Amino acid sequence: MSTQPRQLRLGAFMRPVTIHTGAWRYPGAYPDANFNFAHMKRFAQTLERGRFDAFFMADHLAVLNMPVASLKRSHTVTSFEPMTLLPALAAVTEHLGLIATASTTFDAPYHVARRFASLDHISGGRAGWNLVTTSNPDAALNFGLEEHVEHDERYRRAREFFDVVTGLWDSWADDALIRDVESGIFFDPDKLHVLDHKGKYYSVRGPLNIARPVQGWPVIVQAGSSEAGRQIAAETAEAVFTAQTTLEQGQSFYADVKGRMEKLGRPRDHMKILPAAFVVVGDTLDEALEKRARLDTFVHYDSGIASLSIALGHDVSGFDPDGPLPEIPESNASRTSRQRVIEWAERDKLTIRQLAQRIGGYSGLEMVGTPTMIADQMEAWLVGEGSDGFNVMFPYLPGGLDDFVDKVVPELQRRGIFRREYEGATLRENLGLPRPENRFFRA
Amino acid sequence: MSTQPRQLRLGAFMRPVTIHTGAWRYPGAYPDANFNFAHMKRFAQTLERGRFDAFFMADHLAVLNMPVASLKRSHTVTSFEPMTLLPALAAVTEHLGLIATASTTFDAPYHVARRFASLDHISGGRAGWNLVTTSNPDAALNFGLEEHVEHDERYRRAREFFDVVTGLWDSWADDALIRDVESGIFFDPDKLHVLDHKGKYYSVRGPLNIARPVQGWPVIVQAGSSEAGRQIAAETAEAVFTAQTTLEQGQSFYADVKGRMEKLGRPRDHMKILPAAFVVVGDTLDEALEKRARLDTFVHYDSGIASLSIALGHDVSGFDPDGPLPEIPESNASRTSRQRVIEWAERDKLTIRQLAQRIGGYSGLEMVGTPTMIADQMEAWLVGEGSDGFNVMFPYLPGGLDDFVDKVVPELQRRGIFRREYEGATLRENLGLPRPENRFFRA
Ligand SMILES: Cc1cc2nc3c(=O)[nH]c(=O)nc-3n(C[C@H](O)[C@H](O)[C@H](O)COP(=O)(O)O)c2cc1C
Ligand SMILES: Cc1cc2nc3c(=O)[nH]c(=O)nc-3n(C[C@H](O)[C@H](O)[C@H](O)COP(=O)(O)O)c2cc1C
Repeated sequence: MSTQPRQLRLGAFMRPVTIHTGAWRYPGAYPDANFNFAHMKRFAQTLERGRFDAFFMADHLAVLNMPVASLKRSHTVTSFEPMTLLPALAAVTEHLGLIATASTTFDAPYHVARRFASLDHISGGRAGWNLVTTSNPDAALNFGLEEHVEHDERYRRAREFFDVVTGLWDSWADDALIRDVESGIFFDPDKLHVLDHKGKYYSVRGPLNIARPVQGWPVIVQAGSSEAGRQIAAETAEAVFTAQTTLEQGQSFYADVKGRMEKLGRPRDHMKILPAAFVVVGDTLDEALEKRARLDTFVHYDSGIASLSIALGHDVSGFDPDGPLPEIPESNASRTSRQRVIEWAERDKLTIRQLAQRIGGYSGLEMVGTPTMIADQMEAWLVGEGSDGFNVMFPYLPGGLDDFVDKVVPELQRRGIFRREYEGATLRENLGLPRPENRFFRA
Repeated sequence: MSTQPRQLRLGAFMRPVTIHTGAWRYPGAYPDANFNFAHMKRFAQTLERGRFDAFFMADHLAVLNMPVASLKRSHTVTSFEPMTLLPALAAVTEHLGLIATASTTFDAPYHVARRFASLDHISGGRAGWNLVTTSNPDAALNFGLEEHVEHDERYRRAREFFDVVTGLWDSWADDALIRDVESGIFFDPDKLHVLDHKGKYYSVRGPLNIARPVQGWPVIVQAGSSEAGRQIAAETAEAVFTAQTTLEQGQSFYADVKGRMEKLGRPRDHMKILPAAFVVVGDTLDEALEKRARLDTFVHYDSGIASLSIALGHDVSGFDPDGPLPEIPESNASRTSRQRVIEWAERDKLTIRQLAQRIGGYSGLEMVGTPTMIADQMEAWLVGEGSDGFNVMFPYLPGGLDDFVDKVVPELQRRGIFRREYEGATLRENLGLPRPENRFFRA
């Protein structure tokens, strides 16, 4: 008797378009994709062809806080707003989950509850909410504040915000809308709950003027990594996006967050942990490495050298860019990143310029190789409880995405660790997550 | 030499689905259309086939404030949220304008600027913003307030809100995004403006993290009718939705608002005034009247009699529902509406029940008749400067919409007062409105 092996979950990190700062210059890329809906549609449809769980959009409520010299070279500076883009993609896809980021610090619970409920209805149950407290401090200046709300205070607000939003989603019983043409009764008033929330931070009467979402609640996603961030994830999240650079780090994060869940009495498999993975596919390892190296040439040296110095905890802008990395004294601030950079320099025999361009382009977890090598790595994380899958970052579009879907996905499918067809109709069903009961109306 | 006659502009008032409270019970109607995207898509595509200028969605930030006895019979109680529905409709249409309502009292300028800019990019320049200060006082309770913001204060805030939003839209020069693959420069920092707004109500630094909208600014729409509402319309609006029940009333409103524009130095034709018109089409007058009468039978007597008593300024719930309307004493409160009700009762020989059902279903400006009769009425308003067109309300869907598009539109086209093909690519071009210059970057 064979049991199905644990299944890999795959999200696609699509904000804004790709994360690598040189991606828009790669041959074949669409430099205008940030505001070209036709391209976004093609990307979403390709992801659906590849049976991805979800299209994920991060969000920032200010222009990215980088120095202008780097900013002006970055295609990440401006693009579609997630809660308007995802409904449009809902209309041109059928199965793909649609996860948008919304801020608990700078938006109102009634708006967030409504928009995600509406997206869930429009998409037939494919919405997810990435609950963030907003990382970019400049956002505060766009919302009437002089400085960002303090970190732990943000998370306390976020916790109450979550209670209000989910309470509003439960305003209507699932069977409240009778729509009885004969008697003329559109809904049963006994199945409409007035929340009347009065808490420390929010006072929201309700009810929501949108029927209960198709999924009960859209899937709750979290991406915080601090103590407070991990705790709110353990309490509320059904998927977690995270930046883990090695399998060991991933395993420790995984054990920590799932351990917190267990302490709270939540089953471990009611949450999928998905580290971001930057994946470059080649038919040979050399081809993959060459793509990665070529991509890095599109990163400007000035942007890169600043990032490299930060990663090393040491200003290296004075050295010969085309020479090798000299011995760098240890610094406490960034022991791990320093170690990774030095390893990269040695392994790939990189000059300072090449290193700077690599770090300036993207410096998180990467998988560079043949489809088999990438599948091996993904499987190792899955089997080793480093993750339940990945939030995949494509190096450039559409090429990097096409490669993944055409080459890596079939390999994952062949190994029986990734779906050939969508299991269900909703994001929740595809992720294997239970449908939340309505707290006010038990079925 | 022939000059083109003045052109009629047609919006479709689609919130939520239709306005008539009995519409969902009409034979052939879709009682579930409020949350059925496939139906909304069909409606939008039909409007586009009929060359409508725009699909308009009103919005309310609370369940409608009616007594539960009426509310439970109303399909207007819950439906999609506009800023999520309209992007989805953008993806399945090509020409139709998409006008959503957003509140200056309960939303933040940075969010509103971003979402409408994003919708404008997604739709290729078809977005419009119906700026409201929010009419339903219950909304305040969903946003942390104990009571609604005072009326004129709302409009003062709205005025500043508008300045901030349009200022944010002007953050980027139209040609700021260079995207020069060769040099690696994505945008020219000299063409990015930091707003740094510090006003009485709002403090917003900017810049917006979305490129300038395709239309420069989405089309600005206003629907207020008070002194403050008319004034802000004259100052800012490019289209005005209004409830005018007779041509004389319409003419007076039209003259007033266009006069205010002139005083401010704005050309009169930079604003289109579009009263709401409830249109019931029949192949004969009798058929149209019969449709209207039938529709009214789906309104519950209890809901209707309350509305009728209000309209008459006199409690009529004690009279025989199936008898004629007795002599009603005049009341100061509602002279105009009383007069209209009495005229209806006499003209159509209605019982109290029938009158109650009519008023309870819809009681604004209506056009009931053959395509010729309806076109005559529309033309009379257009030629008589009662309006620049209409915001059409369909009595029920899809039938009432199909009738309009298949029968009334061809008649309007035959008369040369309505387009056969869309004139331009954007809502602004179709409405004949100029593209706003960027206040920070003159072309
Ligand atoms: C994959 C991933 C995506 C994220 N997306 C966003 C985002 O869209 N917006 C945002 O403000 N922060 C985002 N973050 C940042 C987190 O929300 C959080 O602010 C950051 O990880 C720091 O964690 P902490 O606040 O718990 O200390 C993201 C983080 C990760 C790992
Ligand atoms: C066609 C039309 C559509 C309207 N749509 C909305 C709406 O979606 N949301 C809202 O709060 N008010 C809406 N209103 C109401 C107006 O914004 C305004 O509150 C009302 O006309 C009273 O005007 P005043 O506030 O200027 O006194 C609408 C009015 C009309 C005539």
